[in-house]
Order: sequence, then structure tokens, then C-alpha cells
Amino acid sequence: MTVTAAKGFTAAGIAAGIKENGNPDLALVVNEGPRRAAAGVFTSNRVKAAPVLWSQQVLRGGEVSAVVLNSGGANACTGPRGFQDTHATAERVAEVLGHSAAEVAVASTGLIGTYLPMEKLLPGIGRAAGELSPHGGEKAAIAIKTTDTVHKTAVRERDGWTVGGMAKGAGMLAPGLATMLVVLTTDADVDAAALDKAVREAVRTTFDRVDSDGCMSTNDTVLLLASGASGTVPDHADFTEAVREVCDDLARQLIGDAEGASKDIRIEVVHAASEDDAVEVGRSIARNNLLKCAIHGEDPNWGRVLSAIGTTSAAFDPDRLNVAINGVWVCRGGSVGDDRDLVDMRFREVRITADLDAGTHSAVIWANDLTADYVHENSAYSS
Amino acid sequence: MTVTAAKGFTAAGIAAGIKENGNPDLALVVNEGPRRAAAGVFTSNRVKAAPVLWSQQVLRGGEVSAVVLNSGGANACTGPRGFQDTHATAERVAEVLGHSAAEVAVASTGLIGTYLPMEKLLPGIGRAAGELSPHGGEKAAIAIKTTDTVHKTAVRERDGWTVGGMAKGAGMLAPGLATMLVVLTTDADVDAAALDKAVREAVRTTFDRVDSDGCMSTNDTVLLLASGASGTVPDHADFTEAVREVCDDLARQLIGDAEGASKDIRIEVVHAASEDDAVEVGRSIARNNLLKCAIHGEDPNWGRVLSAIGTTSAAFDPDRLNVAINGVWVCRGGSVGDDRDLVDMRFREVRITADLDAGTHSAVIWANDLTADYVHENSAYSS
Repeated sequence: MTVTAAKGFTAAGIAAGIKENGNPDLALVVNEGPRRAAAGVFTSNRVKAAPVLWSQQVLRGGEVSAVVLNSGGANACTGPRGFQDTHATAERVAEVLGHSAAEVAVASTGLIGTYLPMEKLLPGIGRAAGELSPHGGEKAAIAIKTTDTVHKTAVRERDGWTVGGMAKGAGMLAPGLATMLVVLTTDADVDAAALDKAVREAVRTTFDRVDSDGCMSTNDTVLLLASGASGTVPDHADFTEAVREVCDDLARQLIGDAEGASKDIRIEVVHAASEDDAVEVGRSIARNNLLKCAIHGEDPNWGRVLSAIGTTSAAFDPDRLNVAINGVWVCRGGSVGDDRDLVDMRFREVRITADLDAGTHSAVIWANDLTADYVHENSAYSS
Repeated sequence: MTVTAAKGFTAAGIAAGIKENGNPDLALVVNEGPRRAAAGVFTSNRVKAAPVLWSQQVLRGGEVSAVVLNSGGANACTGPRGFQDTHATAERVAEVLGHSAAEVAVASTGLIGTYLPMEKLLPGIGRAAGELSPHGGEKAAIAIKTTDTVHKTAVRERDGWTVGGMAKGAGMLAPGLATMLVVLTTDADVDAAALDKAVREAVRTTFDRVDSDGCMSTNDTVLLLASGASGTVPDHADFTEAVREVCDDLARQLIGDAEGASKDIRIEVVHAASEDDAVEVGRSIARNNLLKCAIHGEDPNWGRVLSAIGTTSAAFDPDRLNVAINGVWVCRGGSVGDDRDLVDMRFREVRITADLDAGTHSAVIWANDLTADYVHENSAYSS
């Protein structure tokens, strides 16, 4: 039930004709209240799509009554005309629902550098509004897919309140592959400031630590809306943990459905001098194309892990590095360790542990392998 | 004639049996003097192979009488035993040639994390020494190949003196794809300090600006040896320019033979606020996997160029960015520019111009596309 699992939300997903193949491409999520608190996190790319610039403004008010999302076009690098299109989209939603456009967030995904077909999108909003339902979450999740092979949803229920969400894309918030759009909803009674704190903390250790291909989108958006419809005020730590769990669940689904991937790679950096060091090393390993190819070929090529670690500024001594692949310590003390033939890499999940022997901090980064299918999908599909 | 084009050098290349397929794998370059001045630049990867650690020590003395190079094994991440192997290699060369081991540089390339077969390598040195010849440069260039499909050599002749060189690999010095090994020789009468200045300046704008796959090797080495055999003391600027031209020629050959590549991408960043900005933006574009796939698919996907620019810290206004692909300004003012259908991408060389409209500096970075062949080669070949 995704974004409609929490009380106080309706949603819809329809085919407005933005995608030429006729697939669903327009989603609407409406917060029916009584509260309309909201917070969001956006791409850190300095080239931001029109809907990101718009929604950042909206979020400053701390209230969102509706989110309109489209696939089939990112409306990025489209200049003043693109921003006018986003504005017109929010205005039409406001008009149809009787809200203020200043409370309508917009998110778009698809090809950068083309204008949206407004003559199809605007009429679609009216139709989507007509289909709004407390059971519409699934359809909304389907309508935001681009190259996703499955739609992604997650729900956590707590004592008297719920957090639900939907996601599309396959990458991280910053950087991120193609576009990652996430809408999270809750019926917990939480104000905008607390939502902001919770969503930032949750994103930091979930979406921000998946790195499918190191590319940062112009459109990445994570929104968290609270209706307060449960009437329950949760403990902040409990609430943040529920949001984090939903984000973690969705993040894993993104990695599991990344373009062309055949492996999900869990990179755990341990005994780092700081969490920042652990993350820097994890990301460097996650983005090493040669290693990603080796993993695809089920080759436990730990030398490429050490090469990647060596490019970072993290604290470590090259002669004290240890690396395990799927539990086998193939590198000990920066040199040849246990027999690499012992490493079994037949399964989709591959675990790399990098032990820096430099402290007590750790971090987990999720990545994917690099495959011919990835190349094919991203050379044939203008996205 | 490569490294033996300059007077005062002999070279050899043989099959010592390090490679299991029996291909040439051991090269020797000897400076017969009268001068034995030398300088070098090495990988900036903090995980450095044993031969890099050794040769860095050797270069501190400013004199190199011989360079021994092997393919078939990088001798990286091999701990104390690996360093002892490199030391033993230099000692054997010194013994055979009657020099000091402290003047013998060593370079290795191949798989990381395995020991060299010293029982094959050491006898090979004696055989290679027996084949040293003033015409041996070609054979030496062939013996250092790994996945290279062709050997790479370049020569520039000036008035009374010459600079020649050989290279293997397909990437940049730091970072670099697999391993890049380069030996440059000159018969100009130049001391170690001047060689050092020349090689650093030449590398900075050549090898350091090719980025095939963003991966930094543990073994990258560029050596410049001067025999003084021409008896000519060149003007420093002329000399540096000749060295730069040889490096540029070899760097282009590396890109042209990069693993699996079907396109050579020339990325020129213009109107940057500083040269550092131009290089940072160029590298970011060069390493964007989504863009590299698009180029492979002959898709002028300029949105991916803007996405890559947006991840940098360079000075620019997103609304003033212009991008041309093969001369067509597909992005103007951060938005839709000329018709992308006008872009002809059938040829191997693709030119991307990124105009930051923020200053007067520029830089050129060379990169390759990302192909299924790259994935295949690097998932099937443990390197």
C-alpha cells in the first residue's frame, strides 16, 4: 500500500501520455490531513532540475498538501521555460484540489534536456485527481518507474502509527544513478522540524550509502509527509528508526533493481579512524570500474580493492590492510592472504570487508557490478 | 626505434617465461653514457607496488644506468617478499651489467597480489643482457605489453639531439587504468634536476590528462633517462617541449588502444576560472559512466555532461553553461541548444567542449567510452 499505508493519504497513478509507449507516467500523492507537515532532501548536484528548484522553495514553508510526480521527462536543463512548466504543473494541481500551489511539491524523472509535453501532462492531473484513493499507493509507485523493472514500496507499522513509502531509480541520493524519487508518508503526529531531522538522519545512512554507478542526478528527491491522522505523537528516536527502516528497505530494492546489474555488492569498511574515512573508502571501492567488472566475472580480485583504497585520503598503513571477499581473508597485512580459490561468488550478493586497522569506526556502502547489460541499457536508452 | 632512438642507449626484450602464454615479458633498457642522469614520476596511489617503492629510492640519487621491466605480474601488494624480489631483480641486473644496484630502476605490470616467478625472471635477465642492442628498442616495447593490442613508441628529433620513448597501458598516471609504464630516453646533455623539471611539466599536461576509466594503478611509472651522448646541451624550454611532444604522442596511443574502447573522447573545458577548475570539470565528465555509455551508443546526451559538471566545485553558473558535441552547441545557457540530431558521431574521435563562461582558462582531458568489451575484458581477465 506504500504511500497510502499511513492514514490521511490518498494517491493515484495514471498514463497521461508523457511516455510514448503509453505506460503509466503521472502520480499524485495527497495529504488529506489534519496535519500537512513535510520535509525533504534533494540532490546535491549543482545542476538542479526545475522541479527540484521548485520543491526546495515549497519545503521551506514546512507544509506540503500534495506531490505530483511524472516519469518520461526530467525537466532538467530546460531553463526558464522548464521552470514555468513546473510552476504550471503545481498551479494545476492546486486548482484541481483546491489547495495553494505553494504547498504542491513536484518531482520529475526521465531524459534531461527536453521539455515536458504540457499539453498531455496538465489534462492528466485532472484525471489523476479523479482517481485519488486511499488504496492508490501501488498505482502511484508504478507510474514513477522509468527503467525500473519492478516498483518499490515499503511499510513499517508501529504502535498506533505507520511509515510507508515508494521509490524509483537505482542509485544514491548524491550522487545517484538516473533519478531517485522517493515519497514517504506517515500518519504520526510530527511537525516539520522533527520530520526534517528524521529524514536527514535516515537518508544519511541509507540512500546516501548506495552507489550504483557513481553518477549524480539532477533530480533526486526524497520527501517525507506527515498527516497526523493517527493522532499519535511518537518518540523521536522510534520515529527516526521507522523512517530509516523504510529508507533502508527501499534503498536495498533500488540496488537490487539497478540497471543491468547482476550482483549486489555490500562493502563494509571496518576499523576506520572515523566514519568519514569509512565512507570515503567504501565509496572509492564502490566506484572502481575495474573491480566492478571483476565482481561481475566472479573474480575475487582483491588487488583492485587495495588500488581503490590507495586513492583515498583516509588514515591507513598500506601494510596493515586486510580484505575479505565473502568471508575469505584474501588479503592480510597488505599482502597475499588466504587462497582466493576458496571464495564462492556464485550468488547475487557479494560481501567485501575492508579492514583499515586504524580505529573503531565503520560504514556500509551498497554497490552494483558493471555489466555489458549496463552498457547496453545506457547506450541504447537516452535517459 | 623508441628508447634506442637516442644515442647512448641499448635495449632488449625477451620471453622469460613470466607470462604463461610464452609472449615476451622482460625488457632491459641500458644507459651506456657518458651521462647517466635520470628523473621519474610515479603513481600517486598510496598503495604502491614494490618496484615503485624501489625505483623511487633509486631516483633519489639522480642516476639510473639501467631499467628492467616485466609484464606478467605487478609485484604489488606482495609485502616484504615482493620487495625482496624487486631488490633481487635489481641486484641481478647490476651483477650482469657490472653496475651498482642502486642505479637500477625496476618496473612491473600485471596482476596485483601474486608473487613473481623469480626462478624464471632472474635467468631471463642474463639472457636479455646478452641481447642488448642499439636497435633493441622495438623488442623492449613489445615485451612490456599486457592487454595492449599494439606496442607504443614515439620519437622527436631536434637539432643534434633526440627524445624517444615507449609506453604500455591505457590510462593516466594518477589515476591510471591497469598499469602505465613509460621509459623516455634522450641523448641530450641534461642533468637530473633539469630532467626532473621537464618530465614533471610534460606529464602534467599529457599522461596526467588521459583518463580511460578513472582507476589508479599501484605501479604507474614514467622514467626519463639522459645519456648525454649527443654532446649537445639543449635549451630547457625546447627540451621540455620535445619531452612533452613524445609524452603527448604516447598518451594518445594509450587512449587509442584502451581496453575495449570504441571511441576516443577529447574533452575540452574552456572559459574556466582557473586551470584547476578546467581539469576538475574535464575529469568529472571523463569519468561519468552514463555519459561514457551514451558516447558508445553515439547518443549526444548532453544532459549527462551537465550532470557531471554539476558534481564539481568549479566556478560556474548552471544557467550559463554551454556544451558542444562534435561542434554542435547542443546546450546553450544551461538549456536546450541546437538540434542534437545535427551531431555526427560515427567516427572514433568524439569532441566535447564544455564552456563554463567563468574565466579564461582551459584544459583538455582525453577519455574513452564504456563498452561491453571493456566489461568483458576486465571481468574475464584477472589483471
